[in-house]
Amino acid sequence: MTAVRNVLFVMCDQLRRDFVSCYGASPVATPNLDRLAERGVRFDHAYVQSGVCGPARTSYYTGRYVNSHGATWNDVPLSAAEYTLGDYLRTAGRAATLAGKTHVLPDTEAFARFGIESESERGALLREGGFTSIDRYDGHTPPGAGSRYAAWLRERGYAGADPWSDHVIGVDDGGRIASGWQMRNVHLPSRVAEPHSETAYMTDVALDWIRAQGETPWVLHLSYVKPHWPYVAPAPYHAMFRGADIGAIVHGPQDGTADEHPIVRAYREHDECISFAREAVVRHVRPAYMGLIAQLDHHIGRVLDALAAMGRLADTLILFTSDHGEFSGDRGLGEKELFYDEIVRVPFIVCDPDPRADATRGGADARLVEGIDVVPTILDALGIAGAPHRIEGRSLLPLTRGDTPADWRDAAFSELDYGFRRARRVLGRGVRECRGFMVRTSEWKYIHWEGFRPQLFDLAADPRELADLGADARHDAVRARMRERLFDWIATGKRRTTIDDERVECLTDAHRAHGIHIGIW
Amino acid sequence: MTAVRNVLFVMCDQLRRDFVSCYGASPVATPNLDRLAERGVRFDHAYVQSGVCGPARTSYYTGRYVNSHGATWNDVPLSAAEYTLGDYLRTAGRAATLAGKTHVLPDTEAFARFGIESESERGALLREGGFTSIDRYDGHTPPGAGSRYAAWLRERGYAGADPWSDHVIGVDDGGRIASGWQMRNVHLPSRVAEPHSETAYMTDVALDWIRAQGETPWVLHLSYVKPHWPYVAPAPYHAMFRGADIGAIVHGPQDGTADEHPIVRAYREHDECISFAREAVVRHVRPAYMGLIAQLDHHIGRVLDALAAMGRLADTLILFTSDHGEFSGDRGLGEKELFYDEIVRVPFIVCDPDPRADATRGGADARLVEGIDVVPTILDALGIAGAPHRIEGRSLLPLTRGDTPADWRDAAFSELDYGFRRARRVLGRGVRECRGFMVRTSEWKYIHWEGFRPQLFDLAADPRELADLGADARHDAVRARMRERLFDWIATGKRRTTIDDERVECLTDAHRAHGIHIGIW
Repeated sequence: MTAVRNVLFVMCDQLRRDFVSCYGASPVATPNLDRLAERGVRFDHAYVQSGVCGPARTSYYTGRYVNSHGATWNDVPLSAAEYTLGDYLRTAGRAATLAGKTHVLPDTEAFARFGIESESERGALLREGGFTSIDRYDGHTPPGAGSRYAAWLRERGYAGADPWSDHVIGVDDGGRIASGWQMRNVHLPSRVAEPHSETAYMTDVALDWIRAQGETPWVLHLSYVKPHWPYVAPAPYHAMFRGADIGAIVHGPQDGTADEHPIVRAYREHDECISFAREAVVRHVRPAYMGLIAQLDHHIGRVLDALAAMGRLADTLILFTSDHGEFSGDRGLGEKELFYDEIVRVPFIVCDPDPRADATRGGADARLVEGIDVVPTILDALGIAGAPHRIEGRSLLPLTRGDTPADWRDAAFSELDYGFRRARRVLGRGVRECRGFMVRTSEWKYIHWEGFRPQLFDLAADPRELADLGADARHDAVRARMRERLFDWIATGKRRTTIDDERVECLTDAHRAHGIHIGIW
Repeated sequence: MTAVRNVLFVMCDQLRRDFVSCYGASPVATPNLDRLAERGVRFDHAYVQSGVCGPARTSYYTGRYVNSHGATWNDVPLSAAEYTLGDYLRTAGRAATLAGKTHVLPDTEAFARFGIESESERGALLREGGFTSIDRYDGHTPPGAGSRYAAWLRERGYAGADPWSDHVIGVDDGGRIASGWQMRNVHLPSRVAEPHSETAYMTDVALDWIRAQGETPWVLHLSYVKPHWPYVAPAPYHAMFRGADIGAIVHGPQDGTADEHPIVRAYREHDECISFAREAVVRHVRPAYMGLIAQLDHHIGRVLDALAAMGRLADTLILFTSDHGEFSGDRGLGEKELFYDEIVRVPFIVCDPDPRADATRGGADARLVEGIDVVPTILDALGIAGAPHRIEGRSLLPLTRGDTPADWRDAAFSELDYGFRRARRVLGRGVRECRGFMVRTSEWKYIHWEGFRPQLFDLAADPRELADLGADARHDAVRARMRERLFDWIATGKRRTTIDDERVECLTDAHRAHGIHIGIW
């Protein structure tokens, strides 16, 4: 029997793996995340299924690749036909509870077509990606109706119709209120006290809720909107790293040259890349980003302490990860997307309380894991059946419990749809002509771009992915082989989702039992 | 302005293209289909998206490839998330009416999940694949609750609980009632008179309904269950071709040998292939199959005559096709599936009443068309907007109206999921490891089989597809090129279906307008 009764699935937004100190040299120390890693397994090669919030999260919540769930970018509603973690938990009488961000957009067309009231219980679940929301707050805009954050701020004296814009991302610039949207202002502290910041608030929401559960088992998705922009941190975190070592700013020889891949070059015309191409901007913004990470780590520590005090560390599976990383000026790029490790390779810690996992505690695991593994891992931990005809990820519990499955994956996959980005117009592409597919093995990363040459990186010789071999004639054979891998992957995506495997097995060659006698003499 | 007010979409089940006389030497004359072809365009290279009823029909009804709609085989429910012809017509206040077969299975899991009552109007539409059914009858089992056929037979004196089994597919064998399921009995006539047969009944249903519409425009899917097995024909058709020329029985040098593709060889262990491998069986069954085709042709003639009498030929778009073909002993195979032209290349006639189509009347068109073209053709004819973010087919009206679009497709695609077939067990495959994908260009047909070598046919040198070059070392380059085509096709399948293209265009690079200021200094 498993010891797992509860699940805490913590996600950050835009947290880079190499800004977490248990992953090696990090410009910011994260002692509490390191403490979590000491209690569990740190996965060193964890990949998200897209380098941008919406599709990456949808893969986390459905256990399916982007090409399967179809929510290819932030603005794409999650099809009502997709099943999420909450749906699977409900089959066992449990619920997936949400505190924070999901980025899920409701499939309102399906609501209308199926006569589902948005405010009904069914509608609410579909709106929230299957989560039962205690406080949904997606960040980077004023908190919506699903969150108490704005009202809570007003109760604490932050007056006005929009305390988020005025206080949370507002800064005092010599008597004048300035906006944290402008990165020039992120050296100044937020106009809320630290305990009233987004990270502190959502931690409080989560801990209050966990305490209220008492001995009732629970599954909570605590989903922070930080360290995502606007990069305004509250005091003292805003100033903690100003003047400190911010780590290397990596540049490759092809950056911005004619040899660079045309899609990467097109991304350089985005506002964030124009800004982050300037080293002064990077040096100004990274300390704030690091401050937000340090603050986050502090609150993760509060969560761990609270769980320990409640005795919950012994029966709670904890998963910690991020939806994607952040360029922060590396390669002269800003923000996210594309397929470099800064973006698609994320921190990923699994703390499995089961005694069978004792032998792996504090260890690192180099095997390839993916965001789609979260749902099957949670279901496995709780002894709830998944749906192998839909779920494309795999449970990580064999790994945390010391097994070495012979058939563990030897490639990870990620996708991008840049149809909504300026790059599409720069390149003169149609809205349905902007797809990229990445396959990453132990040796190579290969990216297929619709309508353009591929990218290829030799991860052994060039772990920073600085030399794109996508047009290098000496690597024709590698590219052909990697393209084969991509083809085999996409051709085996789970498209037959309306019938389960047991039923297929049962119906195989069974027409006679149903009175249908084909071709008998 | 188009002259099209009504649409008649006629489908047969399991009708081979080369058993229709307007397509060349046919062992059975089809003067009425030939008459239809004289009024329209006969497409010579029309491909279905799967060589089996369910997925082929779902592609016809959704305008989407099988890998997109997910109903990969007969027993797979049609996802409630898919849009069909009826959905698109309803946006314009019109309906798609059904008389006959669809093979659509309801997505009952979605009904339960979304709280849709099966008997509600919404439920009925989802059950019937978006069609408003006047008489749904899927054939090869006793007519279900959606059809009046059983009651209608009883009203005509065919007594009993199941007049279909007892009379329609029953035969008198020297005083004893024998079953048409046994192919040895198909030289005997059905125990119903010809006007009471399935084909006659459904023609009556359709004509009565069309007459009742008067001058109200309509869209009718008249979907015959014949010449699909059981191969019992009513008199005089049962005997019409007995002793006649039944056409060649084609065999290839690799048939049944170790050189044959392992999946084809596994199919030989199916009952129908065991039977049809015997020439005596083919010689016994084909005359009945031909009789059913001749009868069908007669009733198509009745429909054309009725439309002419009502003046409806001038304003009715008529599409005639089949969901797939039939081996009928060629290659020693029976039934359907796999990717040979006997199965996936179907008769396809479009009769466009618009005067702009006058120049193409009676002509043949060699361009590649697909079953997925039916929905966009109907919508185009009626001036109803489709959904380019979902529909993967193209309107054929430019072709019927004499255009030569420079970007017309140069490849057709088809798929197979044999996970439900005995062949899967013969080959020791799992239920999710049984997919095949075909790409056919003007020169080559290439088939990718999951877990097995591909098949390749040189259509110029070997139009009967007798020499499988899938393992021929001299064709490595061709196979690599065709595999690229397949990859590009599958990688561009329409997966982003919950947002339309206009909305994507509108949202492109538009975050600033929504108050989100990314990466500005």
